[in-house]
Amino acid sequence: MASYNAYSSPNQSYIPSTSSNQNYTPSAPPMQYSSCSTPSSDSYSSSYSSYPPAYPQQFGYSSGFQDNYNAFFPPGTNPEVIRSFQAVDRDRSGSIDERELQSALSSMYQGFGIRTVRLLLFLFKNPRGPSDRIGPAEFAVLWDCLGQWRMVFDRFDRDRSGKIDSEELKEALRSLGYAVPPSVMQIIMSNYIDSASGRGGLNFDNFVECGMIVKGITDKFKEKDTRYSGSATFTYESFLTTVIPFIVP
Amino acid sequence: MASYNAYSSPNQSYIPSTSSNQNYTPSAPPMQYSSCSTPSSDSYSSSYSSYPPAYPQQFGYSSGFQDNYNAFFPPGTNPEVIRSFQAVDRDRSGSIDERELQSALSSMYQGFGIRTVRLLLFLFKNPRGPSDRIGPAEFAVLWDCLGQWRMVFDRFDRDRSGKIDSEELKEALRSLGYAVPPSVMQIIMSNYIDSASGRGGLNFDNFVECGMIVKGITDKFKEKDTRYSGSATFTYESFLTTVIPFIVP
Repeated sequence: MASYNAYSSPNQSYIPSTSSNQNYTPSAPPMQYSSCSTPSSDSYSSSYSSYPPAYPQQFGYSSGFQDNYNAFFPPGTNPEVIRSFQAVDRDRSGSIDERELQSALSSMYQGFGIRTVRLLLFLFKNPRGPSDRIGPAEFAVLWDCLGQWRMVFDRFDRDRSGKIDSEELKEALRSLGYAVPPSVMQIIMSNYIDSASGRGGLNFDNFVECGMIVKGITDKFKEKDTRYSGSATFTYESFLTTVIPFIVP
Repeated sequence: MASYNAYSSPNQSYIPSTSSNQNYTPSAPPMQYSSCSTPSSDSYSSSYSSYPPAYPQQFGYSSGFQDNYNAFFPPGTNPEVIRSFQAVDRDRSGSIDERELQSALSSMYQGFGIRTVRLLLFLFKNPRGPSDRIGPAEFAVLWDCLGQWRMVFDRFDRDRSGKIDSEELKEALRSLGYAVPPSVMQIIMSNYIDSASGRGGLNFDNFVECGMIVKGITDKFKEKDTRYSGSATFTYESFLTTVIPFIVP
């Protein structure tokens, strides 16, 4: 059985996958940071059932939403998060779409590309809610997660250039709990490094995009690898259903 | 064992995946059109070994390339294909990058988005060659494939609007040999149809993008489903290596 926590030692290096290697780690829990649990259709109802409905208008709870935003956020939510949501949810619908989310995130960080925003929306939305919007509870989780990832990014951007390189990305992902094989790192980095000059790197937007792809794909793999064996079996339909949402634009 | 050719009858409808259903089709061969075989690392050397090297300069074959483009294309290549390649390969390097490919394809069809072009480049490039360029042999295969897909698109765009809808996409993919489950069709279409108005559709660029994603993912699945059982097992590394190239921008 594969171990998902082989990174208890900070200096432990990547352990390649072989059938005889019992220490192979599809992913590992974080050393220092939470890797931001995103809702899955199975786990969602239990972990979120104590919150008010995330989409008041759609579920007929619009009355009073305009006057009391706080009630729709998890207890203890940072007021800045509530203000940020309120600022972009101009029609007071109680949920925000991809453009509003992009605007909210870009006001806090540097600009976020629409592909990254769509990926975040896909990973953090309520699986029982609409596919193209997120509500206050999910927004708060996402905000918190991005804050943690920003800390990781800043920690590895040692020269404060605003960009991290291949090695730093690998270390950053590892500190978030993801042991990405070198072959995969190479594929990822080829999109950000100019092959001729060897120059380039990932800004925070790129880092979030890459990290969330790795996180999302790993989480999906784990759902199928229920015995933590390091391998998972998919039917054709489950394979397409798992993979296609990450690919379509 | 699942059958990959359940669509011998043109009227046969989609057969959903169940473990007891022996007719489940991960994909099926084309009814009328070739589904354009793209090179894989395993099959490439045998099927292309009779052609000249695709990248003359990189392999030291640059001499005379400027004077005799024809020799680097498969025998019988349409002269229009050769002219098109030549028109964008301005530095006569013998291979073209994504922007040059975009320019070549856009001159033949309507504009192609860079994401579609990157996907085509990823699927049609020589696995033994550079990752970001394609040569004459691959270009000829791609050109031929797009011609076939254009015929399929035109056949299903019955009202000549330049767009096809969800049902037409499903039928078009089926005629190309891909039986896409309804759940997956829904995910794909949600990106092209406005959820509020229900309006939208796929132009030829979108159709190629969607179709090539389905084709590429299905081909990768088939490589693992060697017994045509309708299910496939991946290690974490092979899963990431398979999926990530389709996702990263």
